[in-house]
Amino acid sequence: MTVGSGTVSFQTVRETNLGVVLRTVRELAPCSRSAVASATGLNKTTVSSLVADLMARGLVLETGETSRQRVGRPGVLLALDDSSVAAVGLEVNVDYLSVVAVDLLRNELVGRHVPFDARSAGPEACARRIARTLRETMESPQLSGRAVVAAGVAVPGLIDAPAGTVTRAPNLGWQGVRLRDRVEDLLRTAGAGEVPVHVDNDANLAAMAEYRVGSFAGTPDLAYVTGEVGIGAGILAGGELLRGAGGFAGEVGHLALAPDGPECACGRRGCLESLAGIGAIVREAVPDRVPDRPLSGSDVAELVSVAVERAGSGDGVAVGALERAGMWLGRGLSTLVNVTNPSVVLLGGYFVPMGPWLLPGCRAEVVANVFAPGAGGCRIELSALGLSAAARGAAASMIHALDVGLLPLPAPGAARTAAVPGGS
Amino acid sequence: MTVGSGTVSFQTVRETNLGVVLRTVRELAPCSRSAVASATGLNKTTVSSLVADLMARGLVLETGETSRQRVGRPGVLLALDDSSVAAVGLEVNVDYLSVVAVDLLRNELVGRHVPFDARSAGPEACARRIARTLRETMESPQLSGRAVVAAGVAVPGLIDAPAGTVTRAPNLGWQGVRLRDRVEDLLRTAGAGEVPVHVDNDANLAAMAEYRVGSFAGTPDLAYVTGEVGIGAGILAGGELLRGAGGFAGEVGHLALAPDGPECACGRRGCLESLAGIGAIVREAVPDRVPDRPLSGSDVAELVSVAVERAGSGDGVAVGALERAGMWLGRGLSTLVNVTNPSVVLLGGYFVPMGPWLLPGCRAEVVANVFAPGAGGCRIELSALGLSAAARGAAASMIHALDVGLLPLPAPGAARTAAVPGGS
Repeated sequence: MTVGSGTVSFQTVRETNLGVVLRTVRELAPCSRSAVASATGLNKTTVSSLVADLMARGLVLETGETSRQRVGRPGVLLALDDSSVAAVGLEVNVDYLSVVAVDLLRNELVGRHVPFDARSAGPEACARRIARTLRETMESPQLSGRAVVAAGVAVPGLIDAPAGTVTRAPNLGWQGVRLRDRVEDLLRTAGAGEVPVHVDNDANLAAMAEYRVGSFAGTPDLAYVTGEVGIGAGILAGGELLRGAGGFAGEVGHLALAPDGPECACGRRGCLESLAGIGAIVREAVPDRVPDRPLSGSDVAELVSVAVERAGSGDGVAVGALERAGMWLGRGLSTLVNVTNPSVVLLGGYFVPMGPWLLPGCRAEVVANVFAPGAGGCRIELSALGLSAAARGAAASMIHALDVGLLPLPAPGAARTAAVPGGS
Repeated sequence: MTVGSGTVSFQTVRETNLGVVLRTVRELAPCSRSAVASATGLNKTTVSSLVADLMARGLVLETGETSRQRVGRPGVLLALDDSSVAAVGLEVNVDYLSVVAVDLLRNELVGRHVPFDARSAGPEACARRIARTLRETMESPQLSGRAVVAAGVAVPGLIDAPAGTVTRAPNLGWQGVRLRDRVEDLLRTAGAGEVPVHVDNDANLAAMAEYRVGSFAGTPDLAYVTGEVGIGAGILAGGELLRGAGGFAGEVGHLALAPDGPECACGRRGCLESLAGIGAIVREAVPDRVPDRPLSGSDVAELVSVAVERAGSGDGVAVGALERAGMWLGRGLSTLVNVTNPSVVLLGGYFVPMGPWLLPGCRAEVVANVFAPGAGGCRIELSALGLSAAARGAAASMIHALDVGLLPLPAPGAARTAAVPGGS
């Protein structure tokens, strides 16, 4: 009874149903096999067989409790097994790599920040560093005894996700980099086995992180705005990423706001980035500290803390610069809100520490410039996911891919031996 | 094997599968029962039973031809029965109602334009006129012998589609109008039976029309921009309407483009509508013909033809006004394109006759202001669906709702008797 336009093999139906049961247990746990049967419409024998399979693969376990039912035998309760698998997410930024690993319940097992100048390193050295960092993470004690189902890699740029290629990442200086294949090769060569790697845009993955594990988790219409030198948006519409025809959706950094505004790196004037990007903000906020050369990633991190410190102590120049940026940010976001009407826009990255000065003007401009009354119900808030939102999203997306059958399930028994407590 | 979180009754599964077979026949016709079985994964006995049911309901027929197969008996070929059902779509505009009826293949059976001043009439008189127009259409000879599965009504404004309520339609002066319930009541009272009515936004339905039957049919990422006194956008992302959290998505009419621009009806300055809405255009293009009072719907229609006529004969004032409007339209659309990255933006309504003067400047501004190279591959084109795009979309959406099981299928035998050729 599978809907589709191609011939469906028995195995595909079974795999689809394994995913259905996995999702149902996630949603209802703790729950009995009967509850799974009645929620899915599958018969009890089929459910029992599928549950046995998921248990062998280390994805579902019996909690040891039983359900109280009005009729029939009490059922043994099932839950997700959070001890057997892991997914890794890694975020490439201009001045650091951020990496996290999560379990099947998306709880964070490992979180690391690795300073790394990706722009100077170039794509090949960066791919090697990514592979090394993934390998180190997979070998860390917190992951011992777990099967790593996949690694997600977030990159600030235009990504051809199905091909695993970075089409264009201006802030890294990359173009046409086949990152997925290279990292998978490097992992294989290093003896880490066949770990599927998935590459995607950082703003998209950060938006997915907010949807899966952030303060507004479960909100189907939300946007995440990266606060880095560049400004990008990840937009979720009805719980799905809005990618656009060519993957260019969410390009808000170069919305033209002020025809006579400052020159932008793109060659035009008055783009949102040139008015409210982090580079633009620190140049205005702490002009005496800005070096006479293009800003490096570590320059930016330091200048942000100086700007925040000065604003905190009431420095008029810093406060004024942040407030003006907040206003421009609000004008830019009002466009995003007019076009896509999210429930919430989350400001991420370096916008978070600057939030206290950015938010009032930003919110006022959104209310003033969005046509729908009360900004169409849209709130502007700060992300609580810190500088690793995209890495979190990359890892959480791999767990989601497992749930919906886009990733192969771990083979039965894959991680069982080592998963015995103390067995590592 | 149905995926879901609720208990699934046998009837629901059967109805779901009727929809599956209906969609498969639509896709593959002419096709045999075996082809349907292998495309859907349903077994042949089940397919035969479902096909018999769809034939009894007048939705599928045997073409009289047979397939040539390498093995086994030749199969009788199936196709959609385009003679038994119809769906009606009606569009409310400031100065006219437009109504169409289509068959199961979405071919147009009836198309009518009814001059009607909906703004002066108010919601109750308008609901009565809508019901009367729907009834007249359902009783027209072209629909004789057909079961009308549903009527879709397109309204320029913010619509709560699930509730069938017009939340706010500024150009009609409506607020909180429960249009669906009223029209269903009126149809029932008039003896037209229980015809489900669905109300939605005009730009959304016009975008659906483009997706289903327009020149860019099948393009999953497209936008339709209404060219009326107001400017709204219907946006399709991945083949789904982008509605936003509160149904406000696509509000492009009040994007702020020129802080010192002309006053807008919304009270602000320099909104897209105040620079490139049809009212704004005709005021600039044929200033000597603009009456000294608010423009009525019929004023607009007439002023548009004068403007187009003058531009066609080279009148500098008219040409200049249209070219400037095209430029502003391009600036506004570049925002839509930066945020959602469609493959094509279709200009509709009165923008179509003005197209020759609007398009060059519009396209140039889109290329100049969209960050992605080559406007992210986005084309700006004129809609070929004329002034009834939204009505076409409303009718086509009802057929689609039938396909995907959102509308009840006509009862077996509902329209059979009268459908005998000459039987009306």
